[in-house]
Amino acid sequence: MTAGESLRELRERKPLIHQITNYVVMNETANATLAIGALPVMAHAIEEVEEMASFAGALVLNIGTLSRHWIDAMLLAGKAANAGGVPVVLDPVGVGATRLRTEAAKRILQEVDIAVLRGNPAETAALAGLEAEIRGVESIGASATGADLARAAARKLGVVASVTGATDYVSDGERTLAVSNGDPLLAAITGSGCMSSALTGCFVAVAPPLEGAAYALAAFGVAGEDAALDAKGPGTFHANLYDALYNLEPKMLDDRARIGEA
Amino acid sequence: MTAGESLRELRERKPLIHQITNYVVMNETANATLAIGALPVMAHAIEEVEEMASFAGALVLNIGTLSRHWIDAMLLAGKAANAGGVPVVLDPVGVGATRLRTEAAKRILQEVDIAVLRGNPAETAALAGLEAEIRGVESIGASATGADLARAAARKLGVVASVTGATDYVSDGERTLAVSNGDPLLAAITGSGCMSSALTGCFVAVAPPLEGAAYALAAFGVAGEDAALDAKGPGTFHANLYDALYNLEPKMLDDRARIGEA
Amino acid sequence: MTAGESLRELRERKPLIHQITNYVVMNETANATLAIGALPVMAHAIEEVEEMASFAGALVLNIGTLSRHWIDAMLLAGKAANAGGVPVVLDPVGVGATRLRTEAAKRILQEVDIAVLRGNPAETAALAGLEAEIRGVESIGASATGADLARAAARKLGVVASVTGATDYVSDGERTLAVSNGDPLLAAITGSGCMSSALTGCFVAVAPPLEGAAYALAAFGVAGEDAALDAKGPGTFHANLYDALYNLEPKMLDDRARIGEA
Repeated sequence: MTAGESLRELRERKPLIHQITNYVVMNETANATLAIGALPVMAHAIEEVEEMASFAGALVLNIGTLSRHWIDAMLLAGKAANAGGVPVVLDPVGVGATRLRTEAAKRILQEVDIAVLRGNPAETAALAGLEAEIRGVESIGASATGADLARAAARKLGVVASVTGATDYVSDGERTLAVSNGDPLLAAITGSGCMSSALTGCFVAVAPPLEGAAYALAAFGVAGEDAALDAKGPGTFHANLYDALYNLEPKMLDDRARIGEA
Repeated sequence: MTAGESLRELRERKPLIHQITNYVVMNETANATLAIGALPVMAHAIEEVEEMASFAGALVLNIGTLSRHWIDAMLLAGKAANAGGVPVVLDPVGVGATRLRTEAAKRILQEVDIAVLRGNPAETAALAGLEAEIRGVESIGASATGADLARAAARKLGVVASVTGATDYVSDGERTLAVSNGDPLLAAITGSGCMSSALTGCFVAVAPPLEGAAYALAAFGVAGEDAALDAKGPGTFHANLYDALYNLEPKMLDDRARIGEA
Repeated sequence: MTAGESLRELRERKPLIHQITNYVVMNETANATLAIGALPVMAHAIEEVEEMASFAGALVLNIGTLSRHWIDAMLLAGKAANAGGVPVVLDPVGVGATRLRTEAAKRILQEVDIAVLRGNPAETAALAGLEAEIRGVESIGASATGADLARAAARKLGVVASVTGATDYVSDGERTLAVSNGDPLLAAITGSGCMSSALTGCFVAVAPPLEGAAYALAAFGVAGEDAALDAKGPGTFHANLYDALYNLEPKMLDDRARIGEA
C-alpha cells in the first residue's frame, strides 16, 4: 500500500484517533487529524480512557504537559489499546529535560506495547540510552546520525522509531526509511512535532507501523511545502497548513512523497 | 426582538460569558465570544466557579474533556447560576461514547436547570433516551428527524433543545425553529459545535432561550458562509470565521438569517 | 541596550521561557515566544517545575485558569527561579474578580521575588490596593492614571509594574516609561495580554526588567501595527500577528518603538 493508497483508505474509513496529549497543542492536533480525514477524540479521565481507546483506530500518547493523573490515564489507555489490537503512538516530548518526563516515558515504554515512537533526535537518544554516543556522532554529520539513531532506538526499544528533523528517519530495526519532505517554517510553529505524531496515529490506523509512520511524515511534509508557498511567516503558514492537509490528494502525495531506503 | 436586535443588544451590554469548557477549544470559544461582542471568562476551580457564575450573563458547560473535578465544578457553577437567574447552556460533547460522559451529562441535567441543550443529533438522542428510535428514523430522512428529535428532547428533558446539523432545529417542546445557515467547512474544524454553544451563551444572555439559541446558530451560520468565500480550506476558513463574526452587522444578520417554523 | 539590540541578543541566545500559564492561551503564548525567537516550554507538574525553572532564561506565571495544584506549582517554580537568578514575570489575570485569584496573586507576590508584574489597570490597582483611588482618578484621565498607577504599584509591590492599555506604562517606582505602539485589534483577540507577558519573559531574559518589559511591549505593539495592515478582522489579524513578530527586525524595532519617559 502506497502513501496515497493509505490516505485514500484513511479518508474512507475515517478512523477515530484517541489522543491523550498536551494542553498546548490539543486544538492543533485535533484540527490536523480532521484535515487529513480522520476523527480526533481527546479524553484523559481514568474513568473513560479504556472505553475510548478500545474502539479507537489508534491511540496517541503525548507527554508534553504531564502530571501524575495523566500518566495514569496514559498507562490505562495504552493497555486497553494493546488488549484491543489498537496501535499506540508515543510522543515523548521533552524527555531528558526533567526526571518526571524521562521516568514517565520509560514507564510507558515498559508497560505498553508502543507501535511507533515519534520524537526528535535528542528525545529518541535519551530514551534509547544513546545520548553520549549521539553527541559525539552529531559532530560528524546529522544525516548519518539520523538513520543510525532510528535503527538503534528501534532495536533497543522494540518499536518503530520515527525520528524527525530536516530529514526524517523511520526504522523498525531492520528496514530504515528516510523522508525528505517539509519546510523550515514547520520548526517556527509550536506543536508541529505533536501534529506529526497525531498524523502518525491516523496513518498507522490503516497501514503497518513502519510504512504508516513514514507516510504520515511525507504527508505532513508535503502539506508543509504547500503551506509555505504564500505564507508570510509562521501565522499564515499555520493556517495554510490545515488547508494543505485537507487539500492533499492521494495521487499528489504519491508523486511528491520523497521516501527512500536509508 | 429579532436576531439583529439581539446582536445589537449583546454588543451594547457585552455580557460576561462564563465558560467551563474543554481544553481543545478554550481559545476558540473565547475568541468567538469576543468576536461576536461579548466577554469570555474561563474559570473551573471549585473555589471560584460560584462567584464567577453569579455575576455572568450566561454560563456555558461543555463536557468535551472531562474529569471528576471538572464535573464537580460544573455542578457548583450551574447551581450558582440557577440561584442568580443566569441562563445555563449545556454542550454534552461525546455523550453516549463513554459512561463517564453519559452519567455526567445526565447528572448535570438533573441537578441544574438547563436553559439550552446544544448538541448534535446523536448526543441529543442519547440524552433523551431516543437512540434506538432515532437510528430507525435516520434511515427515513435526517430533515424530518431533526425537528422531531428536537421537540422530543425538549419535552423529555425540559430544556430548549438546540440540535445542530446541515439544518439546525431548536425547540422548546411547543415551538420548533429550523435554522438553515452555515457551510460544510464548519464540520472540517474542531470545536465548531463548541463555538456554537458559546455563541448560544452570548445570545441567551440577552434574548429568551428559544430565540437566543436560534439567533446564535443563524449568526454562526452566516459567519460561516462569509468565512467560506475566500477560504482555501479549513485553516483559512477558521481565521476568516472570527473576522466574519466580528464584521457581522445587525441588519445583515436579519437579512440573511434563514430561520423558519419547523 | 536598545530594544533592537535586545531583540538581536534574544535571537542569538534563544532563551528557554518556562511558562505556567492558562489553558486558553498556551498555544498562543508558545507561538508568540517562538515567533520572537525564544524557546517556550510549558510544564506545570509539581514534580518537574523546579527543575524546568532552574535552567530557564525566564519564568512566566499566569493565573488565568487557576486551580490549587497550579498555584502550588507556581510557588515552587517561582522559588526555584529566584534561587537560580531566573527573572519571574507574573500575569495576574482576573485578579479582583474572585477571591481565589486575588489570594493566589498576593501569595505569589509575597513568596516569590517578581521581576515584572504585567497586568491591565484594574488588575494592577487591585493588587496595589489602589482600587478606590484609581476609580476616582480614572474619571480625570486615563493617561495620567496609567503612569501614576504603574509608579505606585511598583513602589508598593517592589516590582517593575507593566500596565498595559491604549498607552502602556512601565515603572520601577523611580523611572517610568510610556509605550505607545499597538493596534485596537489586539483587544479583539483573547490572550493578547498573556502574549505580552510571554514576550516580557523573552526580553527580561536578555535585558534588565524595566527596559525588557518596555521593549517587549514595543515589539508586540509594532507587530500589532503590522498585523493590522491587511487584516479583515481578529482572525486574520491573529495569524498576521505571528508573522509580524517573526519578521520583526532589530533596526525596524528601534525605528518604530515609541518609548518615552512618562
